[in-house]
Amino acid sequence: MTETATPLRADGRADDELRPIRIERGWIDQAEGSALISFGNTRVLCVASLTEGVPRWRKDSGLGWVSAEYSMLPRATSTRSARESVKGKRSGRTHEISRLIGRSLRAIVDMSALGENTILLDCDVLQADGGTRTASITGAYVALADAVRWGQANGLIRPDTPTRRVLTDSISAISVGLVGSRTLLDLPYEEDSRADTDMNVVQTGSGAFVEVQGTAEGTPFDRRQLDSLLELATRGNAELARIQREALEA
Amino acid sequence: MTETATPLRADGRADDELRPIRIERGWIDQAEGSALISFGNTRVLCVASLTEGVPRWRKDSGLGWVSAEYSMLPRATSTRSARESVKGKRSGRTHEISRLIGRSLRAIVDMSALGENTILLDCDVLQADGGTRTASITGAYVALADAVRWGQANGLIRPDTPTRRVLTDSISAISVGLVGSRTLLDLPYEEDSRADTDMNVVQTGSGAFVEVQGTAEGTPFDRRQLDSLLELATRGNAELARIQREALEA
Amino acid sequence: MTETATPLRADGRADDELRPIRIERGWIDQAEGSALISFGNTRVLCVASLTEGVPRWRKDSGLGWVSAEYSMLPRATSTRSARESVKGKRSGRTHEISRLIGRSLRAIVDMSALGENTILLDCDVLQADGGTRTASITGAYVALADAVRWGQANGLIRPDTPTRRVLTDSISAISVGLVGSRTLLDLPYEEDSRADTDMNVVQTGSGAFVEVQGTAEGTPFDRRQLDSLLELATRGNAELARIQREALEA
Amino acid sequence: MTETATPLRADGRADDELRPIRIERGWIDQAEGSALISFGNTRVLCVASLTEGVPRWRKDSGLGWVSAEYSMLPRATSTRSARESVKGKRSGRTHEISRLIGRSLRAIVDMSALGENTILLDCDVLQADGGTRTASITGAYVALADAVRWGQANGLIRPDTPTRRVLTDSISAISVGLVGSRTLLDLPYEEDSRADTDMNVVQTGSGAFVEVQGTAEGTPFDRRQLDSLLELATRGNAELARIQREALEA
Amino acid sequence: MTETATPLRADGRADDELRPIRIERGWIDQAEGSALISFGNTRVLCVASLTEGVPRWRKDSGLGWVSAEYSMLPRATSTRSARESVKGKRSGRTHEISRLIGRSLRAIVDMSALGENTILLDCDVLQADGGTRTASITGAYVALADAVRWGQANGLIRPDTPTRRVLTDSISAISVGLVGSRTLLDLPYEEDSRADTDMNVVQTGSGAFVEVQGTAEGTPFDRRQLDSLLELATRGNAELARIQREALEA
Amino acid sequence: MTETATPLRADGRADDELRPIRIERGWIDQAEGSALISFGNTRVLCVASLTEGVPRWRKDSGLGWVSAEYSMLPRATSTRSARESVKGKRSGRTHEISRLIGRSLRAIVDMSALGENTILLDCDVLQADGGTRTASITGAYVALADAVRWGQANGLIRPDTPTRRVLTDSISAISVGLVGSRTLLDLPYEEDSRADTDMNVVQTGSGAFVEVQGTAEGTPFDRRQLDSLLELATRGNAELARIQREALEA
Repeated sequence: MTETATPLRADGRADDELRPIRIERGWIDQAEGSALISFGNTRVLCVASLTEGVPRWRKDSGLGWVSAEYSMLPRATSTRSARESVKGKRSGRTHEISRLIGRSLRAIVDMSALGENTILLDCDVLQADGGTRTASITGAYVALADAVRWGQANGLIRPDTPTRRVLTDSISAISVGLVGSRTLLDLPYEEDSRADTDMNVVQTGSGAFVEVQGTAEGTPFDRRQLDSLLELATRGNAELARIQREALEA
Repeated sequence: MTETATPLRADGRADDELRPIRIERGWIDQAEGSALISFGNTRVLCVASLTEGVPRWRKDSGLGWVSAEYSMLPRATSTRSARESVKGKRSGRTHEISRLIGRSLRAIVDMSALGENTILLDCDVLQADGGTRTASITGAYVALADAVRWGQANGLIRPDTPTRRVLTDSISAISVGLVGSRTLLDLPYEEDSRADTDMNVVQTGSGAFVEVQGTAEGTPFDRRQLDSLLELATRGNAELARIQREALEA
Repeated sequence: MTETATPLRADGRADDELRPIRIERGWIDQAEGSALISFGNTRVLCVASLTEGVPRWRKDSGLGWVSAEYSMLPRATSTRSARESVKGKRSGRTHEISRLIGRSLRAIVDMSALGENTILLDCDVLQADGGTRTASITGAYVALADAVRWGQANGLIRPDTPTRRVLTDSISAISVGLVGSRTLLDLPYEEDSRADTDMNVVQTGSGAFVEVQGTAEGTPFDRRQLDSLLELATRGNAELARIQREALEA
Repeated sequence: MTETATPLRADGRADDELRPIRIERGWIDQAEGSALISFGNTRVLCVASLTEGVPRWRKDSGLGWVSAEYSMLPRATSTRSARESVKGKRSGRTHEISRLIGRSLRAIVDMSALGENTILLDCDVLQADGGTRTASITGAYVALADAVRWGQANGLIRPDTPTRRVLTDSISAISVGLVGSRTLLDLPYEEDSRADTDMNVVQTGSGAFVEVQGTAEGTPFDRRQLDSLLELATRGNAELARIQREALEA
Repeated sequence: MTETATPLRADGRADDELRPIRIERGWIDQAEGSALISFGNTRVLCVASLTEGVPRWRKDSGLGWVSAEYSMLPRATSTRSARESVKGKRSGRTHEISRLIGRSLRAIVDMSALGENTILLDCDVLQADGGTRTASITGAYVALADAVRWGQANGLIRPDTPTRRVLTDSISAISVGLVGSRTLLDLPYEEDSRADTDMNVVQTGSGAFVEVQGTAEGTPFDRRQLDSLLELATRGNAELARIQREALEA
Repeated sequence: MTETATPLRADGRADDELRPIRIERGWIDQAEGSALISFGNTRVLCVASLTEGVPRWRKDSGLGWVSAEYSMLPRATSTRSARESVKGKRSGRTHEISRLIGRSLRAIVDMSALGENTILLDCDVLQADGGTRTASITGAYVALADAVRWGQANGLIRPDTPTRRVLTDSISAISVGLVGSRTLLDLPYEEDSRADTDMNVVQTGSGAFVEVQGTAEGTPFDRRQLDSLLELATRGNAELARIQREALEA
């Protein structure tokens, strides 16, 4: 799709091409759902824990709850960073991404069909090379879908509720960015650190937006650039939705 | 601007109308810059502290640094919440908004013209009724501008550097949202809690985007809705830029 | 009242003269009681939150509870100090003053007339220039009185209980100090830092003592000096009681 | 001294009589100064650590520094309380008493004669029966005096500086209280919990006041009662000064 | 027992000789059991708190619970260390020793004969000169035994349950080490810091092993050395069991 | 080796048989050394970070430093446990195992040949089924060996220093236990929870002991049982040393 004249990216990809995406389901034997997902060198272990009951503030509402915790192993990055458990507190970044993942997943869950069950998604980044939050959301959806199936098979979720009623759609996320004059899809760390604008877009399998977060790290961006970013992200998320579907059918 | 048929909002505003905006500069005598800003009943005290020197990781770079801390008084909301100093940690929300304010302000600061000085913006919400982060950014800009002037008057910033070179533009933020079938500007708490989609848009005085954060709390939104939200926000930010300019010229 | 020969203080006051005292009630719309109080440049926002029920250890006693939390905004002082929520713990000074305020207010509350309700006073120092604890106690009383009235109007406190039975007296506090050979009333920061002895005196409207805290920062003081400090404080508190009464009748 | 008609206190003491006071010096072999002090059943281990150098903010001032940390073993009281190290934070009470002890000791230290040395007093309550803060101050003075002597013997403090120049006086503290119609000296826990007013008075060996902290726990007190409390405390502290002197001469 | 040719240790002991052991029972009046134990200069205050009921996870099991908390006063060592309550967290070492003491004591408690009661042992090191964990275990047993007797006398433990059924044996601990070519018993700090291998052995009064923890700090040790360490420890623990018995019979 | 009459274990192993051991080197691209190790279903990611320089207390000693941090992902176990970063502190168990791993590795490192470099081993348990500490030590050695080679190849460690001089031996660990009347090697969770005695033995490749930690969870053990446990562990560690050697030669 890229023009002949445009030089390729460092990893040989076209501007609108995803990194190789790999999803391995069932990586953790004891969990109700799990997926090891890779976006190129970024590798995230997504594990879903389904338990009966809901947090106190939601008791007797008939509604379920879904939330997420994101974390990075200390040596996921090129230089080691201190463990948050050792520092005794989580960073603002960790909090922020955890909240984003939870919010994104809740957008496609029918809490009433889930019933008074809680699903907690742990997204632990084993290796980081840009796009850890987008890989987390995309992989967490797969783990979540497996946990819902487990809940149906084990009687926590009413078995006559079709999965499609609990998860009303799929959900995935991708990053896009403006690097120099180019609009790039799925930025690895090196491109991300050079980007003027970095945008994460969370979309359902049917293409609706759940979250749009665009930040100008350098020069502010104009409306035309914003439009081109949104279009590229929409194409990327459509591709991710297809890969998720194939993984869940495997 | 609204059509005759559309009923007014609870506070009598048109859909595309800001709440009454008030900015009082110099509210804190001892600070290098300060502004008490109101967006309707939302009231935020923004205080800028300018000090010589920069954090260790930026030493000897010739560049300055700007960051922000956001917090809410315990009884800013309708029911009292526990102090974060008593709980011993800041919430994810507090972290996330602090980071957003800092990032937004840095987008219009020329760090080299600022020189090796640090400006820290404290945004303390005295009363909250929706839009505390947008009021914080908008008020923090005014406090920041006063701190830069103070720095020039007191020799920390080279006096021959025009303010326009240190602050390359103004910055403001506004919320927009989809409530039912309507697209509303500057949502108070009551509207915000009913919104399907809530979006915060940070823009420079010249209209460029610095941050776009849209979240579907209910039904995901489509591209057309996204476009209408962006247009409304752009109009709101233009109005805020005008109010900031007037406040700074007063 | 001061003799002609004595030079005036830096702000032109006589030795036994209070700074200008201002009390604005109802500064926070959503709170059950609130007052913004100024002792000269010291400005404290006092907010009372009244809720039904009492802490666990007091359940089913028929008695209410009153406590307080004191805090300072980071830039209340001439150089910014770190937020306690960021440091992850409250300082000893913050704890100590919170306890003092709560103890002082409880001295004039009839817990049985209050019934099983809790009133929590938040005293947040917006600007500090000496006397933040005395201004906090004095302002907190006004917020407390408004919260009691609110409780009566809203049926949490039995309406046939006269306010006078819930609050058996008023309460205020003032600082006095020995600076060189002079005995001064209501010390601003500059005088406080030069004082040999600094004393905070909490008294009821009828003049009884609730708390006397005198500390020799420099030379220890003798009994005669102690007596003159107590007399001056008694006159100051009488004046504060009058100002509180006027504010509550306004 | 008490009149015949007045019934004795639970432990058989007269109203103006101290509990048995015991001071054992040198209880900790490795410390520069130490004293195990008992006020009746209240037993506090006071240990002085003298080190060369001062905190950063006092460097190159030529002045020394003295501070204190107070703590209670978990089973010092009749029911066990949780360790502050386990809870992860010190209580307000712990902070407040630590600050009081440090302030009291500093009142009799000539920081310039001490030179750039730091003496830290650890006061650990092994058994508590009222008056732990007054026993701590009284015992800490003895440990402090021994640490100063050690410093002179070991060349950290100039040997030609007489001890009297480093410690300009002795310091002790005692509690007094109003229990019903009686004014009592040195209250054990049982009396303290019944007292209307509780006052701690810190005085130098020559009788000057360093700290006066009186609190009405029940009925506020009047000026005449305050005077009688101060007189009783002065007699108690004179007796403690004598006991300290004897212990240090032993 | 040592051969003539072997030089004595710094404190004049033979290689297989314990330091002077002293146990004072009932040091804390208000506790259900307490013992101040010395292993030479190492002095630990062991206090047992017996309360009715068990932690939530053990409720309605008919079984009791025993645990321990170990801590060191800041100036127990030759240079002062910071309080863990001030640092806001307990060190790994503190945790580890607390767990070891609790585990060791539980080995000789019949939880069913104890009934639904909890005994918490506080071991606070007042002075440290090596072997603080072994002294803690040895002293904690004595405090525990007294608490069990108290429980029987006060009806919390069924009085017809002989103490021997609640405490099925006694328990003690001793350190042994390889220092150069010698195998030494009960190492003070100075020997411990020079040891190639340091081993702590917890044994019952009848000689069975409850815990064996051997660590090569320098050269790893072979099987023959391990055997000699175990034999020496067994002799030391037999001696400690005799001393405990005598203390409890006193 | 087991007699015909003995029934096999739940997973079909003989009493003296290890679970299947798998070691995958280089699992983390950016680290100086890494190994994903499995002991049956227990899976630990061991990552070595080599950096120039040593902690402050070891500066200018010419010696290097090696330490370790152990942690468990929240859903490594059959029910999810809370993250230590969320709780704000590490558990005693986490601390204790981290210290054990560091100590074990240091036993075979020549700190002077390592030079002033630091190697930090992160052992993160991805899935737990007993033996997480023994798998961590065994895998960490492999990651450590790769990091040393990397250091030599990249000039941080003198290239003319043979690896054998930096790592003076290999190191591994295995668990053994008494379950009923049987002595078992390498206990999975289910056996471990039933064991009367559980022992972890750390040994060098040449068979010397570095750490012996035996704990009676139920009945205390006698000397003969202790001997049989040590012999079984020695055979297990010899087998692990062979597997490590093969992995490092691959």
